[in-house]
Amino acid sequence: MSWHPDYLSAVLEPDYRHARQHLLPHFLDALSAHALGLLRVGTPHAAEALAGLRRLREFQPPDYDPGVEDLFFALDRVLAAETPAGAGALRTALSRNDLDMTVYRLAARQQLLAAMDELLRLRRSFLTLAGAESATLMLAHSHHQPAQPITFGHYLAAVENSLSRDSARLRDALGRLNHSPLGAVALSGSSHPLDRPYTAALLAFDGPVENTYDAVSTGDWQLEIAGAVSTCAVTLSRCLYDLLNWASQGLLSLADGLVQGSSVMPQKRNPVALEHARTRLSKVLGYAQAVVYSSHNTPFGDINDPGTDVQQPLWLLWTDFSQGLRLLIASLEGLRIERERWREQADHSDATLTELADTLARQTGDFRAAHHSAQALLSKLRAEGRPLHRATDADLRALGLAVPDGTVQSALDAQTFVTRRETLGGPGPAAMRAQLQHAGERLGHDEETLATWVARIGEAQTRLRNGSESLPTPTSPAGNINPG
Amino acid sequence: MSWHPDYLSAVLEPDYRHARQHLLPHFLDALSAHALGLLRVGTPHAAEALAGLRRLREFQPPDYDPGVEDLFFALDRVLAAETPAGAGALRTALSRNDLDMTVYRLAARQQLLAAMDELLRLRRSFLTLAGAESATLMLAHSHHQPAQPITFGHYLAAVENSLSRDSARLRDALGRLNHSPLGAVALSGSSHPLDRPYTAALLAFDGPVENTYDAVSTGDWQLEIAGAVSTCAVTLSRCLYDLLNWASQGLLSLADGLVQGSSVMPQKRNPVALEHARTRLSKVLGYAQAVVYSSHNTPFGDINDPGTDVQQPLWLLWTDFSQGLRLLIASLEGLRIERERWREQADHSDATLTELADTLARQTGDFRAAHHSAQALLSKLRAEGRPLHRATDADLRALGLAVPDGTVQSALDAQTFVTRRETLGGPGPAAMRAQLQHAGERLGHDEETLATWVARIGEAQTRLRNGSESLPTPTSPAGNINPG
Amino acid sequence: MSWHPDYLSAVLEPDYRHARQHLLPHFLDALSAHALGLLRVGTPHAAEALAGLRRLREFQPPDYDPGVEDLFFALDRVLAAETPAGAGALRTALSRNDLDMTVYRLAARQQLLAAMDELLRLRRSFLTLAGAESATLMLAHSHHQPAQPITFGHYLAAVENSLSRDSARLRDALGRLNHSPLGAVALSGSSHPLDRPYTAALLAFDGPVENTYDAVSTGDWQLEIAGAVSTCAVTLSRCLYDLLNWASQGLLSLADGLVQGSSVMPQKRNPVALEHARTRLSKVLGYAQAVVYSSHNTPFGDINDPGTDVQQPLWLLWTDFSQGLRLLIASLEGLRIERERWREQADHSDATLTELADTLARQTGDFRAAHHSAQALLSKLRAEGRPLHRATDADLRALGLAVPDGTVQSALDAQTFVTRRETLGGPGPAAMRAQLQHAGERLGHDEETLATWVARIGEAQTRLRNGSESLPTPTSPAGNINPG
Amino acid sequence: MSWHPDYLSAVLEPDYRHARQHLLPHFLDALSAHALGLLRVGTPHAAEALAGLRRLREFQPPDYDPGVEDLFFALDRVLAAETPAGAGALRTALSRNDLDMTVYRLAARQQLLAAMDELLRLRRSFLTLAGAESATLMLAHSHHQPAQPITFGHYLAAVENSLSRDSARLRDALGRLNHSPLGAVALSGSSHPLDRPYTAALLAFDGPVENTYDAVSTGDWQLEIAGAVSTCAVTLSRCLYDLLNWASQGLLSLADGLVQGSSVMPQKRNPVALEHARTRLSKVLGYAQAVVYSSHNTPFGDINDPGTDVQQPLWLLWTDFSQGLRLLIASLEGLRIERERWREQADHSDATLTELADTLARQTGDFRAAHHSAQALLSKLRAEGRPLHRATDADLRALGLAVPDGTVQSALDAQTFVTRRETLGGPGPAAMRAQLQHAGERLGHDEETLATWVARIGEAQTRLRNGSESLPTPTSPAGNINPG
Repeated sequence: MSWHPDYLSAVLEPDYRHARQHLLPHFLDALSAHALGLLRVGTPHAAEALAGLRRLREFQPPDYDPGVEDLFFALDRVLAAETPAGAGALRTALSRNDLDMTVYRLAARQQLLAAMDELLRLRRSFLTLAGAESATLMLAHSHHQPAQPITFGHYLAAVENSLSRDSARLRDALGRLNHSPLGAVALSGSSHPLDRPYTAALLAFDGPVENTYDAVSTGDWQLEIAGAVSTCAVTLSRCLYDLLNWASQGLLSLADGLVQGSSVMPQKRNPVALEHARTRLSKVLGYAQAVVYSSHNTPFGDINDPGTDVQQPLWLLWTDFSQGLRLLIASLEGLRIERERWREQADHSDATLTELADTLARQTGDFRAAHHSAQALLSKLRAEGRPLHRATDADLRALGLAVPDGTVQSALDAQTFVTRRETLGGPGPAAMRAQLQHAGERLGHDEETLATWVARIGEAQTRLRNGSESLPTPTSPAGNINPG
Repeated sequence: MSWHPDYLSAVLEPDYRHARQHLLPHFLDALSAHALGLLRVGTPHAAEALAGLRRLREFQPPDYDPGVEDLFFALDRVLAAETPAGAGALRTALSRNDLDMTVYRLAARQQLLAAMDELLRLRRSFLTLAGAESATLMLAHSHHQPAQPITFGHYLAAVENSLSRDSARLRDALGRLNHSPLGAVALSGSSHPLDRPYTAALLAFDGPVENTYDAVSTGDWQLEIAGAVSTCAVTLSRCLYDLLNWASQGLLSLADGLVQGSSVMPQKRNPVALEHARTRLSKVLGYAQAVVYSSHNTPFGDINDPGTDVQQPLWLLWTDFSQGLRLLIASLEGLRIERERWREQADHSDATLTELADTLARQTGDFRAAHHSAQALLSKLRAEGRPLHRATDADLRALGLAVPDGTVQSALDAQTFVTRRETLGGPGPAAMRAQLQHAGERLGHDEETLATWVARIGEAQTRLRNGSESLPTPTSPAGNINPG
Repeated sequence: MSWHPDYLSAVLEPDYRHARQHLLPHFLDALSAHALGLLRVGTPHAAEALAGLRRLREFQPPDYDPGVEDLFFALDRVLAAETPAGAGALRTALSRNDLDMTVYRLAARQQLLAAMDELLRLRRSFLTLAGAESATLMLAHSHHQPAQPITFGHYLAAVENSLSRDSARLRDALGRLNHSPLGAVALSGSSHPLDRPYTAALLAFDGPVENTYDAVSTGDWQLEIAGAVSTCAVTLSRCLYDLLNWASQGLLSLADGLVQGSSVMPQKRNPVALEHARTRLSKVLGYAQAVVYSSHNTPFGDINDPGTDVQQPLWLLWTDFSQGLRLLIASLEGLRIERERWREQADHSDATLTELADTLARQTGDFRAAHHSAQALLSKLRAEGRPLHRATDADLRALGLAVPDGTVQSALDAQTFVTRRETLGGPGPAAMRAQLQHAGERLGHDEETLATWVARIGEAQTRLRNGSESLPTPTSPAGNINPG
Repeated sequence: MSWHPDYLSAVLEPDYRHARQHLLPHFLDALSAHALGLLRVGTPHAAEALAGLRRLREFQPPDYDPGVEDLFFALDRVLAAETPAGAGALRTALSRNDLDMTVYRLAARQQLLAAMDELLRLRRSFLTLAGAESATLMLAHSHHQPAQPITFGHYLAAVENSLSRDSARLRDALGRLNHSPLGAVALSGSSHPLDRPYTAALLAFDGPVENTYDAVSTGDWQLEIAGAVSTCAVTLSRCLYDLLNWASQGLLSLADGLVQGSSVMPQKRNPVALEHARTRLSKVLGYAQAVVYSSHNTPFGDINDPGTDVQQPLWLLWTDFSQGLRLLIASLEGLRIERERWREQADHSDATLTELADTLARQTGDFRAAHHSAQALLSKLRAEGRPLHRATDADLRALGLAVPDGTVQSALDAQTFVTRRETLGGPGPAAMRAQLQHAGERLGHDEETLATWVARIGEAQTRLRNGSESLPTPTSPAGNINPG
């Protein structure tokens, strides 16, 4: 049979290229695990299949051959040329349905681990910078107006705290995807014996996706990834808003390798790395929607929509997310901060006025009234054309308040404002030290957890690629069935 | 000052109404926890504030009064009328920023628990039906073509398995939202002493959101909810595709209270409950996007976007999700299944042909060749105008295969097909019993976990509403700081 | 039959309330047009139906009655009580399918006209302000860095130009929705005679949606609305970015009735009207997605998804879009602009450097080299710690350039920069006058077009509601069939 | 300066490759138009620039060279090596801002014309098939239940009618994008003379985008494309729902070159071309969201977000849309329809019952009562276990209705049902002929319009590429300024 030219160009060829470029080792891993599983239950010629697969590791599939339907059949053909019996045996109790779904999970797991690693690196960049800038005064805004002084370190720690929850989300997504569809065959398993917990363990999965129909039908783990990555992308888009805004006002700038000039405006030094990071994350949100739309209102069964055809938007999602993270890491590492201008902004705003109200409230026990008095002071000063940092105790007394000497001066200093804010998680020096320590410990723990995952999966891959000598002890038949 | 009429009608009035209708008890809970916290650190008049708040439980705020900015100030005004000192004290180290964010989490927690409960009820419906239909033969499709026989129970168990992962996602989201912004005040905490772990514990939070700037700025927990609910909605949309398709072919029908007729076509009995469930879930996906868009490319700081203004789409999301779940539960409970027609479809399709290939492969050890032989048999039969279920051993032998007697007959029976598929998670009787047992245990465990949450939160609410006698032992200062 | 309680609470009751509150007059208009159509083809008792419908204009349907399926049957019941023959006749060749689809178009047309009107008002606000600020110097940014001086009026005109294309999109959407599904009945028309062009004309439609199956199935006009409104929302979100950013830096502020303070920070005067406008438009984008999702991957036929069930997100879309527009209009009308600070920014930046390069290029004919020289000058000044506006001809000559006297001074002045930019559409005074005139003419034309639409539809409604005396001359049978 | 490695790999290299592969001729066209414009206003060395650009048509830019920032500078470097004076002149009053935006519009125009052409081809396929199947009885469903008999041709014509409105939307989008940003330079035009209407005309634009700031800032035309393509994609997704559903039930099948088998189920012949078409359109909706997100909440000014960085999702959108259209065209062209099974379904359903009610209503003038009688008949038959097509006049009389002989027989025949439905746009033979004629005329008109566009643009390209001999007469200075 010959394919319709539009089917070739729109489907078979791009799918083959994607599989060849990104999925080949995962195909060989999954097929090897299947061969070992057949061997374990005594399927004739399984050993030849396994040996043939080992030799196939050297094989470079052609760029594209329209005579072969897909990468699976390209591999099948080469294997059959070498070991007909092995190739015939390997097809026992195997379908492209469970094989593809296994391969997609293996590939996504790899991408997810890489993304988790980059997110940890980004958090490390934020924490390091937070430590270095924990004394840098900064004028925090709320509702797009000057609000209160904090430190730049406090802001950066806030972002890192938020990102730590994204790490947790990605880790949860990893745990839920890490189950094996292998052995579901077309959708109903097989009349052949199969040890699904064993093949799952070989691939470093936590166990099989229990129900075989679920195994080949579901794409929920992809949707969870789309959601978790989107959540992180939105938080980062908010941080990028601030960084670009500060760059726009000259409060910070990027290293030379990350800025671009203009073909017409000679003075330009544009913080484009941050701008491109923003667009990467915007695109992530759209690509996540492509993942969602692909499964929406389709049958719950084996179809291309949440399978082969969603691999492109998933790949785009990983790529753009990774680019966004890397551009941001690079930007943070070479960030130049105009600390004097930050401090000046903090000192010369009205943003310390809360502390004056707090001070008055401590004297009277009535914050409601204190808030009112502080507003009255500000009105008075504005009427007189004087800035807040020139206010004195006399101004307060002129409003009828009997305040002790030094009330105004001590309350309206930005540095004092910050120093007094030792609430748990606040910008005060001790509170800041404590939260940086917590954050450092949490990040260290997350780094260890990730390293454990990476090592476990790397070892499984090495075993599958090198030989069966040190295969894991078979698990009990029930295995660790997808525990939700 | 008088508000611009468009600001009143577009912002203040609808926000007030939403808060009054949906958030009032949460406001009083959060304010009460704050008052207890002030009391604990010895703030003067905190006891009066607490007593006043208890009396405020009886207060019904007016439907709307344009003279009051929002519900917070409506409560503040009533409290001040009753206990000026208490009202003045209550405002100490409190901002609408941390208060609102606390209230939004309390409200979302309530909604999330309700959604989790409905999802558990839906899973229970699926499992019960799966048990009842575990012997009902069904023709499973893949790629929109008849694929293999399974049982309806096997299909239903697959959906329940998938939904069990959604329960886990919602539970994870609950864990991550359940931290307290209270004490972050405007964004930097306060110069007043505050015991944030204590007020967090009073509200049955697992601890404070540590960094105070993060506490008032982040909306990540809302994005996670949007993602988790979307993931579940997509899986359900796929199941609804199947149910509506089967209803369309007369394979099943709904109970009388869930169908509608036509004003013009007298024969109509439309399965509209399922159709409306589908639309509810489609809308959920759009409302989730409204949540995402609301935070996208905004400052990471205290703004309305991920705060007050996202409460409407969040509310719509919960409402439509809940309606979708309830319509589906109701539909499953009264489902009428035409078992004979299901069986007939399974028996009279070509979908058992895999098993003939499997049988031949068992005889020869070569599934590749067996697959080819099975295709040859089908071609032969089609050329002769005969259906597959009329094939005999002689047909195979005519193709040059030496098969034992009974090969064809035993392989091509749909019931036999299913009975032989005892792979872990397959539709065979024993595999099915095992997975139903696992699923039942998992569901039971999830029900218990939810009950524990509900009880814990209910007890905290009761304590806050009734008195301080049995308040929890204060936690250590560090508390359980958002652990990611 | 009694409805399932969840079906009542999730479907029938909210749908009834929505129809009663928002659709009732459109139902009566459509039914009246149908009655007139029946009368025209000589259907017995059609006159009684028509008279009954006139009396029904006084009828206030109950808030909700679970005994009646929907608003249509509530009206049918009342009509039947009054004129059984009329009610029986009215149901001839009528289905809720074509009736509902007609009503939804009538309601959307009303909303669309209102939105078009608000958008014209917003454009008027932009143009008026652009005229007033056409001499206000402003430092335009590109890539988040100072780029070139323009005027605030030039910026505002740019936004208005962009919005004028949104007006055109909404007008195109209006033209495409304005066709009548009436007479499609269930989906195949009827064996009764029907004059579809006549009923279409009665309702001020441009003609029938020709194919009857298309008429009851399609929701494309809703998707077009969702797209057109989204496009406008995104452009406005970009303008809001700028306005909020300028507010954040104190370059502009809002009128008193549009700002809110803080419960804890006494100095606050937040430009919340702009912030809420931004969130309204973000929500519009999500509600538009709810519209898209509702139709995605559903049958092309009469179903609830693009019909009854999409009315809620459509309504939300209109509401939030309108609120966003009105909040922005209100903000512009009372905008206070700190012109001196704008000018100071423009004067003291490096953003005039392009003009120096242009000047040098005019002298040498080589912009490439001139760009290089301008960069060299800036490097020299920075090395010497001098700002650009202190540069002199001597600095250029020190770089080896033989420039006429006054080269630098005339090139580096922000006002001169703008004055020289008389390119078509540029900020120069004459170019600006020309474009404001074009924009004013275009806006005037758009206002007239809208007024014509509003008048035409208003007249049709008046005729239908008041009597048949002055009904339009019946059109030719073919009518103006949806011309694409 | 050397670029940061992550900036190179994430931004510069992929952008260069995209530009080199997809944008190169458009860059040369836009630069040539700019050179001709400079020539026209007498800029020295413009002729050399033009000649150099002609020779550059032969130049193949390197695959990638990290030493050159982007394709513009790669071209600039080659041109400067050949004609330094020409290269220096060409940069006069030119920025990458206006150049890029011009190039993106030229590229999108090409894609849009190609998509319009494919959509016309698809409509032609639908119409041809509608003509061929205009007598093929079909059982139309509503709300997922059998509704009424129509013909397959009537259904297909409905889809074509809907698609004709998508053609109109794309045409409107084309008109609105077809304006020239060239001459806006960085954002404010230039102090050099420029004839923007002239360069616009050279590029076959309808005139300049008037306001220069708007010209480099807006991305509204991309959002309109995203919306228009999404609207079409949703309608097609609905048609694909039906086609796949019919394929699933064996009512139709695809040609051999468009189906795939199974590696494990020998009987499989999956209609995968339709399935892949569905996924292409689902992805289109997500990629459209990537376009929307990219601009959302960004500054209204020259930034990468709606410029360079949105080109990738736009490209994906065009590619997937085109693939979806082509897969559907291919599927329709080789569609095999099981006409006998369609007819059988129509004949043996209850779906003709509307016509019995219509018939009774013609006798009594009361459709309300007739609807009730038809329901009573169906209940009677069901109670007796008889199908509707076995009903007789006696059954009606047994219900107390005095009907003329032959009432039931003539009303309940599916063919009669259809034949009687001659409402404008209905499935009756004459109505069907009329609408096919209208549709054919409309399609022919659309094909001619597109051909005119293609010719006009092709001629402009030829002129720009071959020489200036036959350039268009310069337009008046004002040109056709973006008319909305």
